[in-house]
Amino acid sequence: MSLWIHNAWIPNQGQVNIIIEENIIKAIGPDLAPLPDSHRLDAEHMVAVPGLINGHTHAAMTLLRGYGDDMPLMEWLETRIWPAEARLSEEDVYWGTKLACLEMMRSGTVMFHDMYWNYHGIARAVEEMGIRAGVGAIMIDVAGPDQANTFKKLTQQLWEETSQYSSRIRYELSPHAIYTVSTDSLRWLADFSEKNDVPVHIHLSETFQEVSDCLKKYSVRPAHYLNDVGLLTPRTFLAHGVHLDDEELDLIAEKGATLVTNPVSNLKLAVGGIFPYSEAAKRNIPIALGTDGTASNNTLDLFQDLKTFALIQKHADQDPTTLPAQDAWDIATGARAPLLGVTSTLAAGEVADLLLLRRDLLEITPEHDLVSNLVYAATGHVVDTMIVDGRVVMQNRHVPGEEEILHEARQRAHKLAGG
Amino acid sequence: MSLWIHNAWIPNQGQVNIIIEENIIKAIGPDLAPLPDSHRLDAEHMVAVPGLINGHTHAAMTLLRGYGDDMPLMEWLETRIWPAEARLSEEDVYWGTKLACLEMMRSGTVMFHDMYWNYHGIARAVEEMGIRAGVGAIMIDVAGPDQANTFKKLTQQLWEETSQYSSRIRYELSPHAIYTVSTDSLRWLADFSEKNDVPVHIHLSETFQEVSDCLKKYSVRPAHYLNDVGLLTPRTFLAHGVHLDDEELDLIAEKGATLVTNPVSNLKLAVGGIFPYSEAAKRNIPIALGTDGTASNNTLDLFQDLKTFALIQKHADQDPTTLPAQDAWDIATGARAPLLGVTSTLAAGEVADLLLLRRDLLEITPEHDLVSNLVYAATGHVVDTMIVDGRVVMQNRHVPGEEEILHEARQRAHKLAGG
Repeated sequence: MSLWIHNAWIPNQGQVNIIIEENIIKAIGPDLAPLPDSHRLDAEHMVAVPGLINGHTHAAMTLLRGYGDDMPLMEWLETRIWPAEARLSEEDVYWGTKLACLEMMRSGTVMFHDMYWNYHGIARAVEEMGIRAGVGAIMIDVAGPDQANTFKKLTQQLWEETSQYSSRIRYELSPHAIYTVSTDSLRWLADFSEKNDVPVHIHLSETFQEVSDCLKKYSVRPAHYLNDVGLLTPRTFLAHGVHLDDEELDLIAEKGATLVTNPVSNLKLAVGGIFPYSEAAKRNIPIALGTDGTASNNTLDLFQDLKTFALIQKHADQDPTTLPAQDAWDIATGARAPLLGVTSTLAAGEVADLLLLRRDLLEITPEHDLVSNLVYAATGHVVDTMIVDGRVVMQNRHVPGEEEILHEARQRAHKLAGG
Repeated sequence: MSLWIHNAWIPNQGQVNIIIEENIIKAIGPDLAPLPDSHRLDAEHMVAVPGLINGHTHAAMTLLRGYGDDMPLMEWLETRIWPAEARLSEEDVYWGTKLACLEMMRSGTVMFHDMYWNYHGIARAVEEMGIRAGVGAIMIDVAGPDQANTFKKLTQQLWEETSQYSSRIRYELSPHAIYTVSTDSLRWLADFSEKNDVPVHIHLSETFQEVSDCLKKYSVRPAHYLNDVGLLTPRTFLAHGVHLDDEELDLIAEKGATLVTNPVSNLKLAVGGIFPYSEAAKRNIPIALGTDGTASNNTLDLFQDLKTFALIQKHADQDPTTLPAQDAWDIATGARAPLLGVTSTLAAGEVADLLLLRRDLLEITPEHDLVSNLVYAATGHVVDTMIVDGRVVMQNRHVPGEEEILHEARQRAHKLAGG
């Protein structure tokens, strides 16, 4: 099976044809003829760009979108989120993740890194929707050694079972946070990650509370503690990282870990402080962008979060030149975080994950600067076509099965909220 | 001519029919039959809400969208914006305003308050597009008394000429700012506003520079100076108001002026500081929301700015309960700023300005809380139908003439940038 994309625009390259064979971009050039029996995609008035990477989310929380906004954090968790989550079945997670995939596809995300329960519910949903995800079993062992042992067994078991899925499902370890996982379990995960070369996805330094608790308990700040347990490595990506100080950033840079900023969630939950982008960028720390779950955002449209990210960083630095559009765009496509993505440049030899964006929409007219338009003016509604692993998974914004997904998600969300 | 809207949902009222006769909502209720010869609008799966009010913009700057982002403020103004604006003809402003109206209609804005040059270019565009605008001749007299006299004459002349337009065009005085208009001219405008009962639209306290210059020149802060020249009245609305202190807020509350916050523009231009929402709200100061021009935003979609507004205020207060969704929504519809809008509640007897929003879109599924969804999850893409002054000006997102507007705007934008 091959694809012939006709007359797409690529920034800095101009009008080109793109040839895709199996799951690989074979060639890109202005006058390329199709391979025999190619499927043709007309891309007149379209821009071809790499897909976006969502570095941190809890996908199935789509079912809880708008369920208790504007509440104090602990009241929200205790009276809304935790009781609803306690009722979540694997089938709920499956349908919630399908709704999330649908929303991400419609807004250009080809791969997301998830942290939630019910591994197989998530993996099955992603497998069927045709995009990519990093998926793990979220680990929390506040209940003590028995809970820790259960999670260790589950981690090992899922690691073996994950071979049943395609390469689009990537196994990742998901310890929830340093305040919900014991030192012993974190060390165990560090060994597991090293031995099996598995990435580690963890919340770090989201709130002041976390920092002060860590200082009280371990006499070091969170990044130093994570390093002490062996988890600050090039295989680790840290969600949030709002309250990192200069020494922690030095350490993260030295150890090669990746930071995933979640600007909308951080503002909405009012965690105080703003992700230290300029300080992290200065140290060449790999950086990606995440939406966090829809209960604290409430969308999965990275185009919108991308704009908020650029705006809030300019504000933080009191400098309108901070995080210019091209840098923000590169971060959204995963170009600044090799650990998290697959293809961040369209070129021959790369895996064929890409988007065709509509260039003729009124909200991005006129086009003085295409990348500025994508960052500051577009929403995910500019995404027309998505190709993942060489396969067209969405065209003309149509994804097969949408009606059924919306119907099931509505039913299940209603039941979860109603109790 | 009458309209019968069938089966719309209104928050807190439920499923209703709406009867509109001429430009007035005649009745709203669950089982209302249509008047004879009514035009029927099916609103199954739609929500009826008041239209949004954009309290501060420079509409024709759509032609400069993305033309020089991420630059230092003065370099941006001096090398990009001002040279391009010097080349703007009335026809450019007419087409740029049409593009802006189109974008605002597609994202639910029924009325905007503009500050730009070429009054008739703006007024003609709005008149033809069918929405509402407050329009004035922007006044700047830094060149001295001759320039001041020219503007005074123009202000008087346009005030007489504005009767040629429908009631959808509202005449407003638009002194640019306290640092670009002389004390004498500001006093003249204050008299004009009082004598003719005309609203006044002015930038106030956007940057630190403005505050410190005002203190240096007049020994008082901007709101006090504005009061001294007679312009702080219930007819005045102040765009930005970022750097207002408590005493200024007290004075604004006492005098009854309205504040228009422009959160996206303030962050993008990195003006430092955040609009003091909670302090203003505590004093019951009327508050509206604005996009500012697309050169500093870069969209006119108030749904997006509404979310940024709520997020940044939570951040500023370090409190997730600040500016809950319903309050943010009310501000976007003009319900908290009577000076700026026409209809902010759907009820019998009100002028028929309203929207039908799609309730079945994936990005606002599920619906645990409709208003939360509109504020935190929706973009302007949820807007299906717009009715202004009893007339359907957009249905199924279709606005007549879109192709021509995009074509003309592209041509003119290209010429402006190219020189």
